[in-house]
Amino acid sequence: MKILGIDSSGLVASVAVTEDDNLLGEYTVNYEKTHSETLLPMVDDLAKRLSLDLNTLDAIAVSKGPGSFTGLRIGCATVKGMGLALNKPVIGVPTLDALAYNLWGMTNLVCPIMDARRDQVYTGLYRFVKLKDEFHMETVLMQCAIGIDELVEKINRFGSDVTFLGDGVPVYEDYIRKNSRAPFSFAPANLNKQRASSVAALGGVYFKEGKTESADSLKIDYLRLSQAERERNEREGKE
Amino acid sequence: MKILGIDSSGLVASVAVTEDDNLLGEYTVNYEKTHSETLLPMVDDLAKRLSLDLNTLDAIAVSKGPGSFTGLRIGCATVKGMGLALNKPVIGVPTLDALAYNLWGMTNLVCPIMDARRDQVYTGLYRFVKLKDEFHMETVLMQCAIGIDELVEKINRFGSDVTFLGDGVPVYEDYIRKNSRAPFSFAPANLNKQRASSVAALGGVYFKEGKTESADSLKIDYLRLSQAERERNEREGKE
Repeated sequence: MKILGIDSSGLVASVAVTEDDNLLGEYTVNYEKTHSETLLPMVDDLAKRLSLDLNTLDAIAVSKGPGSFTGLRIGCATVKGMGLALNKPVIGVPTLDALAYNLWGMTNLVCPIMDARRDQVYTGLYRFVKLKDEFHMETVLMQCAIGIDELVEKINRFGSDVTFLGDGVPVYEDYIRKNSRAPFSFAPANLNKQRASSVAALGGVYFKEGKTESADSLKIDYLRLSQAERERNEREGKE
Repeated sequence: MKILGIDSSGLVASVAVTEDDNLLGEYTVNYEKTHSETLLPMVDDLAKRLSLDLNTLDAIAVSKGPGSFTGLRIGCATVKGMGLALNKPVIGVPTLDALAYNLWGMTNLVCPIMDARRDQVYTGLYRFVKLKDEFHMETVLMQCAIGIDELVEKINRFGSDVTFLGDGVPVYEDYIRKNSRAPFSFAPANLNKQRASSVAALGGVYFKEGKTESADSLKIDYLRLSQAERERNEREGKE
């Protein structure tokens, strides 16, 4: 089972190929460049180094949101195009689930946070539980867009030790340090940003469960309205 | 603190750049190609995508062994060359420590294994302990070359739940399944192979502790004699 994973939900552009439990390769770049210019050349460069024929893929997994609207559109458009051209099924992986999967087997509650502007974060809460010795990721709070104050309040009520990761950490670290009453830590550099290998690995789990779809049915989970939509609704007096 | 990490200790060639707690980029390729042909072009490609001036690095970290003798020599020679040319300190990171660091914060005992041929593995045992809410990696068994039977026997005596990772897993998975009496699991594809970001992140920890050295003093930890050396010793009647 060979899966191409793609994540362009944030500042990071990341592509990876897994084959069953083996990572064949991954390319991750966290730099101010348009994903539309970098994503396909990175797939191409990686495929060349792996002598990979894209026709041998079983599926293409993509981080389907939430995240940067433009980033998500570039990622999903890329995957839709490749899925249609190669006639391969696609797998939409929730962005926050994939981020949490970086910390597979983690002792603490896992809390990925992405900066959603306006004092909000895209976030979720996850824990790894053992069933018959194997770790399974359990969703404690499904991915959502909420205020950082509301998130920290929720975690305080849980009281469990928590580890934060994601691009929201540098933005809200001070707030967390001041307001968290639960013991907390921050994931290190090797694990704290989007990784296409996590999208591909989690995509592999979904693939086995039959959770694939056709390229044209794939939809982005924005979780919020875009600024343009919000402004139009305000003008038109809607909620 | 900007660190270039390099790992070519096994089949995987991996390069990464971290800046403090931020991953700037990583390129990992797990494919039958000579590291001498791929490693520097991968550094070059990554640096270009990051518009990275290598003179701005603070140090270069490298997986210094054990592992494939040729792979280690290519990695260390590359790092020595770059360290000398750029006049930067280098940091030698034990291969197994870096592999274990992939599973930062892991609930279980962490056991990286690399196939060392002749029924031996390069291995070590690590656990993540919390001190003032922060995870620290503690070495339970320092990296060493031992028989897979001896390793499993040691783990059985410990009795703790253990998670295996590394290229030794596909080779020794059957042996482990048959002989392990401790509960065990295997890390997923996104975390189970060498990653230069783990070398760079752990290198950053060493950097802060002042554990750097000059490019010309860096030495590989082979942990075993090469086949040629063993054969010469046997001819000469030495142990």
